[in-house]
Amino acid sequence: MDDRATRLAELAAHGANVQEGQIVLVNAELGHEELARAVAAAAYERGAKFVDVNYFDPHVKRARIEHADPETLEYVPPWYGDRMRQHADERGARINLAGVTAPNLLDDLDTSLVGRDRLPRLKEQGEIVTERSTNWCIVPAPTRPWATLVFPELSEDEAHERLWQQIEHVLRLDEPDPAAAWDERMAVLNESAERLAQRRFDAVELRGPGTELTIGLFPTATWWAAAFTTAKGLRHLPNLPTEEVFTTPDPARTEGYVTSTMPLVLQDGTIVRGLRVRFEGGTAVEIEADENVEALRGRLAVDEGGRRLGELALVDRQGRIGPLGTVFYETLLDENAASHIAFGSGFPFLVEGDDASRVNESATHVDFMIGSPELEVDGVTADGERVPVLRGGDWQI
Amino acid sequence: MDDRATRLAELAAHGANVQEGQIVLVNAELGHEELARAVAAAAYERGAKFVDVNYFDPHVKRARIEHADPETLEYVPPWYGDRMRQHADERGARINLAGVTAPNLLDDLDTSLVGRDRLPRLKEQGEIVTERSTNWCIVPAPTRPWATLVFPELSEDEAHERLWQQIEHVLRLDEPDPAAAWDERMAVLNESAERLAQRRFDAVELRGPGTELTIGLFPTATWWAAAFTTAKGLRHLPNLPTEEVFTTPDPARTEGYVTSTMPLVLQDGTIVRGLRVRFEGGTAVEIEADENVEALRGRLAVDEGGRRLGELALVDRQGRIGPLGTVFYETLLDENAASHIAFGSGFPFLVEGDDASRVNESATHVDFMIGSPELEVDGVTADGERVPVLRGGDWQI
Repeated sequence: MDDRATRLAELAAHGANVQEGQIVLVNAELGHEELARAVAAAAYERGAKFVDVNYFDPHVKRARIEHADPETLEYVPPWYGDRMRQHADERGARINLAGVTAPNLLDDLDTSLVGRDRLPRLKEQGEIVTERSTNWCIVPAPTRPWATLVFPELSEDEAHERLWQQIEHVLRLDEPDPAAAWDERMAVLNESAERLAQRRFDAVELRGPGTELTIGLFPTATWWAAAFTTAKGLRHLPNLPTEEVFTTPDPARTEGYVTSTMPLVLQDGTIVRGLRVRFEGGTAVEIEADENVEALRGRLAVDEGGRRLGELALVDRQGRIGPLGTVFYETLLDENAASHIAFGSGFPFLVEGDDASRVNESATHVDFMIGSPELEVDGVTADGERVPVLRGGDWQI
Repeated sequence: MDDRATRLAELAAHGANVQEGQIVLVNAELGHEELARAVAAAAYERGAKFVDVNYFDPHVKRARIEHADPETLEYVPPWYGDRMRQHADERGARINLAGVTAPNLLDDLDTSLVGRDRLPRLKEQGEIVTERSTNWCIVPAPTRPWATLVFPELSEDEAHERLWQQIEHVLRLDEPDPAAAWDERMAVLNESAERLAQRRFDAVELRGPGTELTIGLFPTATWWAAAFTTAKGLRHLPNLPTEEVFTTPDPARTEGYVTSTMPLVLQDGTIVRGLRVRFEGGTAVEIEADENVEALRGRLAVDEGGRRLGELALVDRQGRIGPLGTVFYETLLDENAASHIAFGSGFPFLVEGDDASRVNESATHVDFMIGSPELEVDGVTADGERVPVLRGGDWQI
């Protein structure tokens, strides 16, 4: 077993905080085998009762879209959701591997058909995250096709080595004690989140090239770093790496326009470049892009909440991802390079009382990056005062 | 898509007789990806509503046996069986891919631990076969590690090519219309089965080098070729290739000794060579072998029925597998090269009335080959007459 994969797997098990006697779901794609096996070993080492590794095959998805009756493409067998539901009811742990395995595999297919088959995404995922029944962690799994996508100017071997090095760096696996390094970083992020939450801003204003956006917040909204606690009190780090502090906005109060600062990669691998969105009364009324805007529109058309915001996240320049200047074409990494917002499902656990029922609901959740050193972020208080929050990537509060 | 894989996949879908609107389970191992994807395409082409490809990873199994608490090794999450159960309740189709993917992967591990983890086998499989709720087919999936195991004297590329050629030959894919060729062969096998059933033999005697065995039959026992019909009347070919006619014997009436004529490969890849078994009152009282006898004994120790017989199958010399002289180390192929018997679960649907409750029950089913050109097979009638059945591999009745 590659020592690199073992170290990454141990960090994933630490992030999910796998407990003795837990059943661990590992959701992987074909291409992630090496890390999936290392994760299984690491989870068993921590005392897992069973590790259920599930490999999704994007080529089987392609076969479906090419050959199946289009009317059946939204069908999901009941046992797909039952597995997640039963596992959550048994209070299991979950480790998801993220990393491009088959770039552009679906590019030549009819996008309206591609949009209908939403697998491997399951509606139960969102429910289970919201109810906080499981402790979980998503980590990147380096693959050769992904490396070639990110570093097209390098040979495959060099690209693969470079991707591994950068992922080790952003995961702090180049530190003597990566788990301790993450504890330290999470303490800083938690303090930033706490300071933001204490201000009880009524809205946040974002200004930069191609962006002039006001996002209204709930009166009870808090801000979190990605250090979660299950309903039963088990701490876990849902994303590694993570560099963000985030809240869930009022889905009716976003106004203005925003321009993405990095490409957005949809779950099926489609890359949306040059995204520009205009909001009115919380809804995206214009969605334009230089490439693949139809795929994004299709993804957001799934329900009414698809065109409203569920998340606002701020990233400072102390994070390790932004300074690399690498576009990873993978949300887990790219969203932690820069401040971002997300269409679709929000986080009811970040607000209190009646506000929880007003948090955006949707079957989709699509993050896109809007941050840059030029982006100025202000908080707006209930009585209209503007308080600088981020300038040049540095916290002002 | 490789044209070879497509032709094999289409034959698999024909063998399972996939119907429009059915959900198709594909049980594969990592290493079977090419054929699994082709099977998905072929099933969708026939109108499948959904194809659920499940990849088992033997390396994850190894990680479990190496790192998990030994007390947990028999645990199977409830959703593994629920998936098969729900699929059967919805009257789905099933295609299993068989083909060695990781030979000797578990050889250096403690056999008593290896025996406890029975995955990917599920107890629901046997139940579902017995109730005849699904239409299904097992086909071989050529892999490079398998080719190297079968043809160690060839280069990997040559071995892979040779394995593909032999599998195409035994699957009759070298015929202009493979499906029609199978219809023809099944007609011959069905006639042999019918002639055997009409004789209502009380027992079968087998004599050859190292073998002198009498196997008692049920009064109501019939003989079948592997052309099955579901409870709802859907015909399917459960094994391709198939060359056998078989019955389920009286588990209390096997006497004598038998020597295997080919190596036996257990489901976890362990190879048992030179197997010799002595029976008394239906139970194997002595089990010896030149290699890996402990692994077999462990497999059979799972319950009382593990050491009794569930199947007796006769193979004539017209089949395409025996004449190749190849040991495939894969039961699906090897069992159709020669007459064989199986420890463990029998087939209640091959007897009638009260006899059904006396058919052997077990959580295991292990076939081993005892046939050769030297093997003489006689039927013994209720009044003690001996009727020649097979001589030199040719039917005598």
